[in-house]
Amino acid sequence: MDDATHFREVGEAGILARVFAHLGSAGGGVVLGPGDDAAVLAAGGDAAVVFASDAMTEGVHFDLAFVTAADVGWRLTCANLSDLAAMGAEPWAAVVSLAAPRSTPVDFVEAFYDGASRLARSEGLALVGGDIVGSPAGLFFAMAVLGKAPAGRYLSRAGASPGDVVFVSGDLALAQAGLHILAGEGECRPALASEATRRYRRPVPQTKLGRRLCARGLATAAIDTSDSLSESLAYLAAASGVGFRIEAEALPLGEAARDVASSRGEEAVAYALAAGEDFELVFTCREAKAEEARREAERAGVAVRAIGAATPAADGLRLLAAGDEKPLRAEGFAHF
Amino acid sequence: MDDATHFREVGEAGILARVFAHLGSAGGGVVLGPGDDAAVLAAGGDAAVVFASDAMTEGVHFDLAFVTAADVGWRLTCANLSDLAAMGAEPWAAVVSLAAPRSTPVDFVEAFYDGASRLARSEGLALVGGDIVGSPAGLFFAMAVLGKAPAGRYLSRAGASPGDVVFVSGDLALAQAGLHILAGEGECRPALASEATRRYRRPVPQTKLGRRLCARGLATAAIDTSDSLSESLAYLAAASGVGFRIEAEALPLGEAARDVASSRGEEAVAYALAAGEDFELVFTCREAKAEEARREAERAGVAVRAIGAATPAADGLRLLAAGDEKPLRAEGFAHF
Repeated sequence: MDDATHFREVGEAGILARVFAHLGSAGGGVVLGPGDDAAVLAAGGDAAVVFASDAMTEGVHFDLAFVTAADVGWRLTCANLSDLAAMGAEPWAAVVSLAAPRSTPVDFVEAFYDGASRLARSEGLALVGGDIVGSPAGLFFAMAVLGKAPAGRYLSRAGASPGDVVFVSGDLALAQAGLHILAGEGECRPALASEATRRYRRPVPQTKLGRRLCARGLATAAIDTSDSLSESLAYLAAASGVGFRIEAEALPLGEAARDVASSRGEEAVAYALAAGEDFELVFTCREAKAEEARREAERAGVAVRAIGAATPAADGLRLLAAGDEKPLRAEGFAHF
Repeated sequence: MDDATHFREVGEAGILARVFAHLGSAGGGVVLGPGDDAAVLAAGGDAAVVFASDAMTEGVHFDLAFVTAADVGWRLTCANLSDLAAMGAEPWAAVVSLAAPRSTPVDFVEAFYDGASRLARSEGLALVGGDIVGSPAGLFFAMAVLGKAPAGRYLSRAGASPGDVVFVSGDLALAQAGLHILAGEGECRPALASEATRRYRRPVPQTKLGRRLCARGLATAAIDTSDSLSESLAYLAAASGVGFRIEAEALPLGEAARDVASSRGEEAVAYALAAGEDFELVFTCREAKAEEARREAERAGVAVRAIGAATPAADGLRLLAAGDEKPLRAEGFAHF
């Protein structure tokens, strides 16, 4: 096995690409197979089912020194709902698989489910089942989620064209800043810290925004920012066959994120591009519809910001900062 | 935390009971919530969606000293399909979450997916997505599966009445015997070993049987035997509000299982009742329909055996052996 390729060398995307080559789509009814934020299945009549899963491992995705079991339940639910948001689907139902050592207190699992069900309830997501198994060491949580969409009406990563405006929702890197503060790996003015740490512990998925953009036909492509803004842009670019020119000055970067980046000796824009704990949406729309998309987002109670435009694929990912244009490198959360 | 209740004291059922109390069923559309082999959701029109998940952990559910990554993929898919079988649902689509250390060879994951997709393809199950994350130590695989059923037409653990005949499919404990042989924890005549080890490594879910029983309205209740026959009977009894009287002589026990039980110094019937690696169905049906159920199973190519009858709840679980009747204790696979 010494000359084999390992996870650490290829990353999640590399592995998934090799695995998905095996899968194909068995049987009919698969409208959109592996490779997007979720799969889409034809449910008969004019309904489609959207199906995704997301997992979190202790020591990789969370550290119980900084967050509670309820926070983990909430965040895992948010990650799954965020996949539905990126597809423009309505939350429906979820199941949870949990692996834990035998010495785990039952209270811990109840707290996990309490956090998960609080967010689930507020989003109309029914937690309908799951299983609990042993683990020799460490905790592992996997959730699978179902959403509903009218047939043929879903968002995907493919669909952006050169000239489309790129939007992002929310405050970039606020959750990441919160994690850095909790972990003692970054600092900000005391008055700003609690909003950041709360955003990390209790993020909110952009399901309303996704559904509205989808229902009104306003987005040409969408993805969530769960790995990072720059990774998301790279996925969108690859799936849509476009490039992106992003304007550094337009990125919605709040003071807490700027403070934390600075305390870490990092440049704020680079920090925001690589921040990996957000569940915001990145979406593209035709320039003629940009104003309507912004208003629609406002009606959903979400601030969105135009941060650049789609370009021909050959132009790649570019960052425009202080009049200079340079390549925008995709980097973000490493799941390994 | 020292005086807290831990997993090892309450087991999976105990934890799930405490957790499910939190859940309720958010929103409409949940026909059958947590607590059965799968949940049932109303999909609109005359369709229902059946939703389940099952997970496997290295060192608890499998040991890579005896099985390959492809075997693990196959078995996890089988466990999930078996949940659909128990509900009488048609396999539809699945997603996989996988946690693995960074040093895991990519080939290993490809082999896992190869095993999973072989069984999935033959059962009409589309593997439509998943995610792969890191794990500090040990492998963890979770699959979530969707099935289809006509609205109102599904099997569940509730529905057996006193007087119903109890059937079980397949050969009891054959897979368990196979695992004991592979692990060097049991022996059988050499000519019998390969069927047993193959049954452990590549079990087959009883999806056809479940669908036929459901479509013809022949089963009053059903469950799979993934924990053990005795555990399954206990779950059926609790959900249906009945007891069971099981006839030891009627249990479908082959020679390999008898050999292995004997080599371990265990009584064959006790071994069969507690064997935990099978994916067979236990179902009940009205006495007047028992012959029809047996013929229907034959048409699905599955041998089923009547092993006893449902009794009033007050009678509990009883085992009839050599003219003697004694309590039947539920014991089986401990997931912790």
